[in-house]
Amino acid sequence: MRFICTQKNLLNSISIVQKSVSSKTTLPILKGIYLEATMNQLKLIGTDLEIGIESIIEAEVQKEGSIVIDARLFSEIIRKLPDSSVEISIEENNQVLIKCKSTEFNILSQNATDYPELPVIEEEQTYEIPQELFRNMIRQTVFATSQDESRPILTGVLVEIEDERLNMVALDGYRLALRRGKIKAQDTYKVVIPAKTLNEISRIMNMDEDEPIKIALTDNHGLFTIGNTKLVSRLLEGEFINYNQILPKEYKSRIKVNTKSFLNSIERASLLGREGKSNLVKFTISDDKMIITSNSELGNVYEEVEIELEGNDLEIAFNSKYFIEALKVIEDDEIFLDLTSNISPGIIKTVHNDNHVYLILPVRSH
Amino acid sequence: MRFICTQKNLLNSISIVQKSVSSKTTLPILKGIYLEATMNQLKLIGTDLEIGIESIIEAEVQKEGSIVIDARLFSEIIRKLPDSSVEISIEENNQVLIKCKSTEFNILSQNATDYPELPVIEEEQTYEIPQELFRNMIRQTVFATSQDESRPILTGVLVEIEDERLNMVALDGYRLALRRGKIKAQDTYKVVIPAKTLNEISRIMNMDEDEPIKIALTDNHGLFTIGNTKLVSRLLEGEFINYNQILPKEYKSRIKVNTKSFLNSIERASLLGREGKSNLVKFTISDDKMIITSNSELGNVYEEVEIELEGNDLEIAFNSKYFIEALKVIEDDEIFLDLTSNISPGIIKTVHNDNHVYLILPVRSH
Repeated sequence: MRFICTQKNLLNSISIVQKSVSSKTTLPILKGIYLEATMNQLKLIGTDLEIGIESIIEAEVQKEGSIVIDARLFSEIIRKLPDSSVEISIEENNQVLIKCKSTEFNILSQNATDYPELPVIEEEQTYEIPQELFRNMIRQTVFATSQDESRPILTGVLVEIEDERLNMVALDGYRLALRRGKIKAQDTYKVVIPAKTLNEISRIMNMDEDEPIKIALTDNHGLFTIGNTKLVSRLLEGEFINYNQILPKEYKSRIKVNTKSFLNSIERASLLGREGKSNLVKFTISDDKMIITSNSELGNVYEEVEIELEGNDLEIAFNSKYFIEALKVIEDDEIFLDLTSNISPGIIKTVHNDNHVYLILPVRSH
Repeated sequence: MRFICTQKNLLNSISIVQKSVSSKTTLPILKGIYLEATMNQLKLIGTDLEIGIESIIEAEVQKEGSIVIDARLFSEIIRKLPDSSVEISIEENNQVLIKCKSTEFNILSQNATDYPELPVIEEEQTYEIPQELFRNMIRQTVFATSQDESRPILTGVLVEIEDERLNMVALDGYRLALRRGKIKAQDTYKVVIPAKTLNEISRIMNMDEDEPIKIALTDNHGLFTIGNTKLVSRLLEGEFINYNQILPKEYKSRIKVNTKSFLNSIERASLLGREGKSNLVKFTISDDKMIITSNSELGNVYEEVEIELEGNDLEIAFNSKYFIEALKVIEDDEIFLDLTSNISPGIIKTVHNDNHVYLILPVRSH
């Protein structure tokens, strides 16, 4: 193998595929990046067997071939090279020679034949989503996934495609996040994508905003293509909870409130709650104001928030963390908070569209 | 105690004095910030008994008094308040009431009488140094202080004032950093300031660049004044090493090299060295080039750097860390590296002025 490429392109590709390389793996070959020089291109692959990322760059290939180089060392070396052309070749005994201007590195490498192959996904049926929309939808749902590995299905986000609609849903037993979007597809599809995969996709997307992301799905795998980068991920197996059954259809109190004021007040109220390890905040709702209070051994806090109330007065307590996380990702100025009783879930909706629904279970306060 | 001030001023002052508050202290009162409202001003103090910081802001004082409030909680609360005026008062049982718009916090506090007093430093004789110069001089020496508490004097920087000259010197047994500057003082003074103190001063200086820092010294303490902020620190006791005796007066090889190219090459060469836990890099100097090499079980690296050589060819090995740290803080384009033999120290000097001198001991290579 022998090829020449630019330091910039190579470093960019390494940074992308490195995201799927785990330094904690027990399989030494997975600490490496797989390089394959063919025709006029160089393919780089990194994988932790759950997620695989492939990136392709232009290269002047003088001799085809493939090799696996330690990801951390390779990335550090290429990062420190000058912005110039880099020549990489395999010498005797799997030694890799990296030349750039007056610098020469000779480093050990591993045999490419030992590197696992990424699953092959047919790209017959693909969905296209604008990158910005998909990134927002991820950010607005993924925080509500469960961290608890004992119910693996809840560590992912349900992605539903149905009649030009794209819904993403995450829930963890205490709250639920639903984000609705549009997609150009007369299709019906349901998959559960691991939160980790979606976070990686978000990070890759940040680099190149122009074209839409292309998604191809099988029963077990998803393939996400952004320009010259492909990410393949396992999907989560099992039945996702029928979330429509959980969402209440009615309410007895509807509060209209400014998203930012509400968030700020809850954040302040949570300062004392957090110190006391309980995140409890109490809402006392009546007429045109909501009083938010919180107590701990350190003191207490009292907040007044202007609201418009339709329906009954109510006292209800929540874990402030769930409100803060939901309100932080809503970009709309105003929200509705729909409540029924102090033991029924609270529902946050955006006022001017139906893109967002957040359900939060209350806490019994004493 | 009752006063009104702006959230912005208060937050700024808290951020400054909080730097000297340690969360690890065994004395609970030191986890707090001392507040004293007198006349038309509010004084805030934080200290860990080694360093004390005092900051004064304007306030409308309705009732004089003082109190100690937990630093972390106070800072979190004030940070989250809106950009408006804040009213703070002591209520019954040492409860502190913090009011801002529609927010009210009631938090516990501690008695101000238990708070230690900062040492009083006479400001009869003060030195003025432009903030930018002092910050640079700190950055260009403090990295060479020792981390080893068994020789406490080396954990500080020697500050020498002599006939309008200000010298700062740090050394740790393996390398030495000397930075020369100018000061308006026909005086002679020698103190050793703890590295931690200098780092704190640097951080405070970042916030206000206009006026010079004023320094007042006693045998045991230093007082550093920047605008409305005062930092008092213990000085280190004991005799600093006579560094002039260590600096060689002659050399047999003088190398002139571009600072940045040299740094880049050593940084690359250190990539393999670091992996192998030894930081060894070898310089082979002859004619118009220096070859830098490094080896480890992961591979080897070869670098060529253009130089101008005056004197003898030489092979010498160093710990790359010491070169990297010295070269990183030099702003000048070109340096001299003066060498005598492969067991004598290397001396880095700037070509166009005598502001910088770095001494680095070589490593015996095999």
